[in-house]
Amino acid sequence: MTPIRLVGFDADDTLWRSEDYFALAQAEFERIVARHVELDDGHARSRLHAIETGNLGVFGYGVKGMALSMIEAAIDITAGRIEAADIHRILAIAKDMLGHPVEVLPGIRAAVEAVAARHEVVLITKGDLFHQEAKVRASGLSGLFKRIEIVSEKDSATYRRLLEEFGLPAAAFLMVGNSLRSDIAPVLALGGWGVHVPYHLTWEHERHAQIDPSMLPRLRTVASASALPDAIAALADQAMRA
Amino acid sequence: MTPIRLVGFDADDTLWRSEDYFALAQAEFERIVARHVELDDGHARSRLHAIETGNLGVFGYGVKGMALSMIEAAIDITAGRIEAADIHRILAIAKDMLGHPVEVLPGIRAAVEAVAARHEVVLITKGDLFHQEAKVRASGLSGLFKRIEIVSEKDSATYRRLLEEFGLPAAAFLMVGNSLRSDIAPVLALGGWGVHVPYHLTWEHERHAQIDPSMLPRLRTVASASALPDAIAALADQAMRA
Repeated sequence: MTPIRLVGFDADDTLWRSEDYFALAQAEFERIVARHVELDDGHARSRLHAIETGNLGVFGYGVKGMALSMIEAAIDITAGRIEAADIHRILAIAKDMLGHPVEVLPGIRAAVEAVAARHEVVLITKGDLFHQEAKVRASGLSGLFKRIEIVSEKDSATYRRLLEEFGLPAAAFLMVGNSLRSDIAPVLALGGWGVHVPYHLTWEHERHAQIDPSMLPRLRTVASASALPDAIAALADQAMRA
Repeated sequence: MTPIRLVGFDADDTLWRSEDYFALAQAEFERIVARHVELDDGHARSRLHAIETGNLGVFGYGVKGMALSMIEAAIDITAGRIEAADIHRILAIAKDMLGHPVEVLPGIRAAVEAVAARHEVVLITKGDLFHQEAKVRASGLSGLFKRIEIVSEKDSATYRRLLEEFGLPAAAFLMVGNSLRSDIAPVLALGGWGVHVPYHLTWEHERHAQIDPSMLPRLRTVASASALPDAIAALADQAMRA
């Protein structure tokens, strides 16, 4: 019997909107390159995705890496015919994304407060340090979290390191998030617990995850923030009975 | 009497070369824009500096923000005449910088080992999380440090937060670094200690710092890594007598 002592929350698309802005940015990118070349449907998108994926090991996650990959993809797709003014438009997309207000998702503040009344809560997010810190500040939610961890990758090695820093076994940790790949699968694999809150948009890169069926009893899926506290309470009871 | 219990090391231009690469990148940037416009000496450099400084609040520090600012500056300086192929060259500069091998500075490994034999040591660096983590891994030095902290800004508020996390008063903390602005002044201001190791190149942005003369007894300046252990030992003795 190991009680759940710490609950981690993902940030982008769990606490606040994020992927919507990436989707809008991508649509704008496609409009920009379409001015210079006739393209088959989906070609610009798949070429951008390939270039972004290829650059992840050099740029990491985040808007600045996205912008550099978009500029590279625009030059590639137009065979160098894109003009400086359109590259300037891609820069403007990135600056807009880095500066837009943070929209906390419906019901999230109440849900985090309810969970924080029963457990210690931490925020664990990946991506660009500077942009993530700015979003945490702008969200007005930072006071609810005991710690804020911004990491470059959310895999089992990262969660293992964080749990060592927290001084907790994985069985005492539950993670809440929208990405099976980054929030749920690595925590379940270590022996922890997960609550999946799917978001209406998911970046291609985050869609794929392997979850062993034997781990499913430690996972709940909820449709909205308001269902989070009950789902966490149910898993916490289960942990006490295990 | 508060003994010095923790020694922090800056990374870029303290443990390994960094500004040299920025200087080379800037020279290459100037060559690229000079192909498109006749420029007064220093104009491209000062325009780039102004755009970088203006973007710091949106991009933060690091190579990706530098690259985006360079692309913006190249479009600005050439009044949009720069071609896609030259923007691609600026992207290549950034990728080269993100991928180059890490050159640990002469004498640093021995100096950190000597200091680590007497004090706990941590690494405190600012900038891009993903790139800094990659450099820490590539340096082969990470095993010497108890903790590695990558922060978005090195000011008094950041050092205060870190000291709270470490559970230490500022008087028990000594910081080693090449930047008076980021490594030395904020730590002295909190009541801590500093060893300044000037680097032969300093980014314009890091040159300015205010140090109150009353704080100078808690500061030493050394010319090279080999002098670090003795300077730290001298300040540690001084702390024991204070």
